[in-house]
Amino acid sequence: MNEQLKYYPLEEIENYKVLGRTNEDRFPLALFWNNSGIEVNVDGSELWIDLEVGNDFFEPWVASELNGALMSRQMLLEGEHSICLFRSMIKGVKKNVKFYRELQALCDNLNCHVLVKGFRTDGNFLPVEKGRVNIEFLGDSITSGEGTYGAVGDAEWLPMYMSSSRNYANMIGHNLNADIRLVSSGGWGFYSGWDNDTRHTIPSVYEKVCGISTGPVNEALGSLNDYDFSSFETDAVVINLGTNDASAFDQPAFDVPGVGPKKLRRNEDGTLNEDDCDMLSSAVCDFLKVVRKNNPKAHIVWCYGMFGCELGLTISRGVSKYSMETNDRNVGYITLANTGENEYGSRFHPGLVVHEKAAAVLTDYLKQKLHI
Amino acid sequence: MNEQLKYYPLEEIENYKVLGRTNEDRFPLALFWNNSGIEVNVDGSELWIDLEVGNDFFEPWVASELNGALMSRQMLLEGEHSICLFRSMIKGVKKNVKFYRELQALCDNLNCHVLVKGFRTDGNFLPVEKGRVNIEFLGDSITSGEGTYGAVGDAEWLPMYMSSSRNYANMIGHNLNADIRLVSSGGWGFYSGWDNDTRHTIPSVYEKVCGISTGPVNEALGSLNDYDFSSFETDAVVINLGTNDASAFDQPAFDVPGVGPKKLRRNEDGTLNEDDCDMLSSAVCDFLKVVRKNNPKAHIVWCYGMFGCELGLTISRGVSKYSMETNDRNVGYITLANTGENEYGSRFHPGLVVHEKAAAVLTDYLKQKLHI
Amino acid sequence: MNEQLKYYPLEEIENYKVLGRTNEDRFPLALFWNNSGIEVNVDGSELWIDLEVGNDFFEPWVASELNGALMSRQMLLEGEHSICLFRSMIKGVKKNVKFYRELQALCDNLNCHVLVKGFRTDGNFLPVEKGRVNIEFLGDSITSGEGTYGAVGDAEWLPMYMSSSRNYANMIGHNLNADIRLVSSGGWGFYSGWDNDTRHTIPSVYEKVCGISTGPVNEALGSLNDYDFSSFETDAVVINLGTNDASAFDQPAFDVPGVGPKKLRRNEDGTLNEDDCDMLSSAVCDFLKVVRKNNPKAHIVWCYGMFGCELGLTISRGVSKYSMETNDRNVGYITLANTGENEYGSRFHPGLVVHEKAAAVLTDYLKQKLHI
Amino acid sequence: MNEQLKYYPLEEIENYKVLGRTNEDRFPLALFWNNSGIEVNVDGSELWIDLEVGNDFFEPWVASELNGALMSRQMLLEGEHSICLFRSMIKGVKKNVKFYRELQALCDNLNCHVLVKGFRTDGNFLPVEKGRVNIEFLGDSITSGEGTYGAVGDAEWLPMYMSSSRNYANMIGHNLNADIRLVSSGGWGFYSGWDNDTRHTIPSVYEKVCGISTGPVNEALGSLNDYDFSSFETDAVVINLGTNDASAFDQPAFDVPGVGPKKLRRNEDGTLNEDDCDMLSSAVCDFLKVVRKNNPKAHIVWCYGMFGCELGLTISRGVSKYSMETNDRNVGYITLANTGENEYGSRFHPGLVVHEKAAAVLTDYLKQKLHI
Repeated sequence: MNEQLKYYPLEEIENYKVLGRTNEDRFPLALFWNNSGIEVNVDGSELWIDLEVGNDFFEPWVASELNGALMSRQMLLEGEHSICLFRSMIKGVKKNVKFYRELQALCDNLNCHVLVKGFRTDGNFLPVEKGRVNIEFLGDSITSGEGTYGAVGDAEWLPMYMSSSRNYANMIGHNLNADIRLVSSGGWGFYSGWDNDTRHTIPSVYEKVCGISTGPVNEALGSLNDYDFSSFETDAVVINLGTNDASAFDQPAFDVPGVGPKKLRRNEDGTLNEDDCDMLSSAVCDFLKVVRKNNPKAHIVWCYGMFGCELGLTISRGVSKYSMETNDRNVGYITLANTGENEYGSRFHPGLVVHEKAAAVLTDYLKQKLHI
Repeated sequence: MNEQLKYYPLEEIENYKVLGRTNEDRFPLALFWNNSGIEVNVDGSELWIDLEVGNDFFEPWVASELNGALMSRQMLLEGEHSICLFRSMIKGVKKNVKFYRELQALCDNLNCHVLVKGFRTDGNFLPVEKGRVNIEFLGDSITSGEGTYGAVGDAEWLPMYMSSSRNYANMIGHNLNADIRLVSSGGWGFYSGWDNDTRHTIPSVYEKVCGISTGPVNEALGSLNDYDFSSFETDAVVINLGTNDASAFDQPAFDVPGVGPKKLRRNEDGTLNEDDCDMLSSAVCDFLKVVRKNNPKAHIVWCYGMFGCELGLTISRGVSKYSMETNDRNVGYITLANTGENEYGSRFHPGLVVHEKAAAVLTDYLKQKLHI
Repeated sequence: MNEQLKYYPLEEIENYKVLGRTNEDRFPLALFWNNSGIEVNVDGSELWIDLEVGNDFFEPWVASELNGALMSRQMLLEGEHSICLFRSMIKGVKKNVKFYRELQALCDNLNCHVLVKGFRTDGNFLPVEKGRVNIEFLGDSITSGEGTYGAVGDAEWLPMYMSSSRNYANMIGHNLNADIRLVSSGGWGFYSGWDNDTRHTIPSVYEKVCGISTGPVNEALGSLNDYDFSSFETDAVVINLGTNDASAFDQPAFDVPGVGPKKLRRNEDGTLNEDDCDMLSSAVCDFLKVVRKNNPKAHIVWCYGMFGCELGLTISRGVSKYSMETNDRNVGYITLANTGENEYGSRFHPGLVVHEKAAAVLTDYLKQKLHI
Repeated sequence: MNEQLKYYPLEEIENYKVLGRTNEDRFPLALFWNNSGIEVNVDGSELWIDLEVGNDFFEPWVASELNGALMSRQMLLEGEHSICLFRSMIKGVKKNVKFYRELQALCDNLNCHVLVKGFRTDGNFLPVEKGRVNIEFLGDSITSGEGTYGAVGDAEWLPMYMSSSRNYANMIGHNLNADIRLVSSGGWGFYSGWDNDTRHTIPSVYEKVCGISTGPVNEALGSLNDYDFSSFETDAVVINLGTNDASAFDQPAFDVPGVGPKKLRRNEDGTLNEDDCDMLSSAVCDFLKVVRKNNPKAHIVWCYGMFGCELGLTISRGVSKYSMETNDRNVGYITLANTGENEYGSRFHPGLVVHEKAAAVLTDYLKQKLHI
């Protein structure tokens, strides 16, 4: 045991960077979303992170990166944990460590949570440089990294199959040396969830810290607080939504409590119902207005196509509608390559290679738009 | 010399497929566009093609494929030529041969032409199967394959650097077993040429056989005839235009004869002038109406981004405007991966690998849209 | 807490597969080498593994695979641990789990150890199928996966930078559905260690369970016992040694205790001293005799070149010498692609892509030689 | 017609580089082997090459490169030809042109020939730089590029399916800026042809200009003259032989005129007969002695495996035998990746991608051995 280790509660540490949306002034620090975490530069020989964790049927997974390279990935269960992030390294040399949540935020009243209480080290906490740009990613299971771990054919809906360590948003963060924040939830859409449940939309929770996570545990952690957009002034917002809205056309009606049955419809010839598409285009337009309100300087790009592209025209119409109504030119629509036959990961979702291709295209696009 | 060879004037051959827009009932057959040519199935041991060729400063290049694989590529000069396409093969076995023009149609009054007069063989001309679908590609230098041959750094504007043998349209044709027709011209746009010359637009020539090629030689060949859209009923039209319209923003005004100076403008902060963008969006919309009129059943997709993507929003707005004004849902807008730093070919144009990537994405997209 | 979980000491479990060389009849089960571990098929909803772990300056890392896909990777420290490998899965369905050591065996008297005591589950242990073939890999830091984790530029010699999860041997195991065992140690050679210490050779420890790991802790675990080659009858032995023998030519003499100074020499013109090369060739030949004695039916292939190839001729001469002296034809020598300029991982070692390429070539080679 | 064009007989041109083995002091210049040709630097606007060509059942194919990039590929038939290699380029700028034979040398008494008589240009012939190193490649159908053109499934043995434009040797020449010479013949081996005809071996013709090509036409061109090794002092010799010797084990005996039946044998269990392998190893050794005698300074590397690897041990034993008998250390043996299931070209031969992979590995190997 390294007797020189000293415990530092987070509130006493001057230098660290919060990763992801949370209530930054509360201690311990709650990690709500995937890729939410904490980044430090430490010059000690050893570093531990102290956590408080809860779980139900679903448990959180976490990962750590050392100097930008993935080092560990593991399941966390109920309790207080002190996890060693590195040891036996040369003292006096700066090491950059990111510790973050792999598992997306979970909706409904669940106890699954990860709280960062502090660190133990024999060194100092050095300043952490800001990224070159700030990028927010809004998405669904793709942005939650579903399918990026696990065997092809594995089909159960479980936390271990999701990640931020292998997802395109994290890759773009590395490519651009960007700080990133993710707001994503598997099965959710911009107008409707995959099953026509119109309550499950990112727009409905966009202005909260983590509006997805309800119930006493999460609310006590401030999940439903208004999100302070000034805490992370974005240079770009990447919206990767539409996959589940498309699915809803092939699902039965959903009886939304207090609203009644909802259903996106196909025509008899199998094509998409025009009125429903118009409604979706308007939803795209409306959401962009909200995103712009909160991100005045950001380039906003809606990207689509990694996992089917049937709503391509509908979404691009919505983006154009927004642009024309508001005369906002700092917005774009791009398509990403679809998942090829041999490119699936677990859970019939886009595999690692699809994320790599999307990251390459978006990296190039953002470089040009952000002039970096 | 194979004494069994017999000459067949084209007008006496029952079975062959015309590749590309031309006047199919005229003999000899004029090859106006790149990828224009002729396809035959022959069971002889030997096959020759008889040509009449003209050239000026610029000369035509041609290529041949045997059973779908590129076999030869060569320059053609003034005169009558009889070119052997294969020999010493086993008689009685069907061989599929495509012979086509590598060089795009040239604008202005030029003498560069390729006419197919007939074939020589010791075998029979067997029926040529139709492709699974018909696709028309409308484009600029990218679709003319500029940069797909030649050394990186080679910069002169010459026919040999262009191709259809290595361009994305031909790759898609092979991938989908499609019949394809190309209408493309380097430097041309949908609203303006690269230099603000607004006469150089594909829409202005779209309804002619080869409206680009003027002057007595071409006109005598029927280049300015109305194109018979019923000769090639399209399942898809791929429009890959915008690169040159984007360039025009960085070029001085062009004094268009009879019209006056034309110029697409940037704002003082370097962004694109909004009025000009609106005009471009309207031009996109207007052109789509013309394309739809002539291609009633086709899925129309505008693709953009292989060589810069600054007009992405402008074009997608135009596509959406068209879709909303006409309530036409069988249209789309997709983006293609930009040319990476190490992906240039000759003439600072997208190299072979960029065409390969674009072909992969478009192949996947068209498979889905055409249900093939 | 799952109240149906029941603890099974390993000695009471009928069905499991031991991965790697160890004393299979001792409980708890010691994991000496990288990729040493245990494989089970379990039909419960949840599975935990119980471990006893020790560490010094260096600590062990472990990884787990679920149905053949990497799921977790983490550091283990001193103490008794119960680690959850999966939970909340559907009961009654078979899950395949491999749990194995990432860190190579460490030489010298160290306390670093991992012992498997048992499992906890609410299901049954089902039979584990044998792999299609058995393959033993003998190697150095490459086979220890050094450089397959960690940032390019990270240079400290630490356990976290080594792996079996990302190394070529594990990839081949997956490709061929083979059972594999690794015997490897960074810095060791077939005749000499990287620093001319001639005690650090795989041949010197080949016939022991884990002859590398000495001292009271390891010896108490049986590391120095004779290895029972009948416990894993090999179909192939892959020897990937020579990198460190080559390095020794550029290092000063090493004063081997009881032996005196040792040094592999270059000639004045920088070429390798011929006598020393002959000695190395003889060492290759001699080692192959020992390998053959213990692996009577195996195809033996010496592969070389992933990290420099200066000893290529010397080694292939040794292989040929062996083949000619013994008239053994079931042996081969192949070269693997060198590490390219942009292919390094951490510790200036071959990165992940180099392992992937080597795995592809060796997979193909072994398929042919083993007729699978 | 460019009236400034002037005809230069080759014997009056001071600056050009001969590509490939030939009688360099004879005019016109005979192109015997694939990749045999001529390289010039010309500053004119236009360049033509004048040829005299003959053919039988098989005809020669040729290709041209401009500034290192492939530009044309075509069939040549009987007669005198003047072929335009470029035109309409900027006068006064240096253009580098290589014109070379695609088709391998043909054995037996055939009339197929290509003679370079001179050039036509309106510019000057500038000095042609020597390559950084000189490399000779000795091989069989792989080195003749068989399968690098043509559709997968095309199976007739015809000139058009062979190339040097797409073969690994030419790629290495480009990668290393090397001058290269090829000596290769489909179906030939180092000890035996594919059909056990032991007259068809590269060693039997190695010391002649083009010992493969016999009969009055070729002999009049000097094909059977002793080759002047001083005309191309090699830095490396790459031997890629063995594929056909391996095939012979599966073919019936061949009755070699004046010698009697010859056959390489398998044992009853399908393995290779040991005595025959020893004979092959000795043949490798003997040939290396001849190669060394004529290439005193070259690094000699035998590479094997692109199209099956059954003789790997046999060949590496032969290389080692040579090295040990002669104490020659400047020799090596490396293996190349086998043709994968989806990597075949026409004629069931390694396709383009296999050549690309082999070129990458050999380029790296030669860089290291030649210190370039």
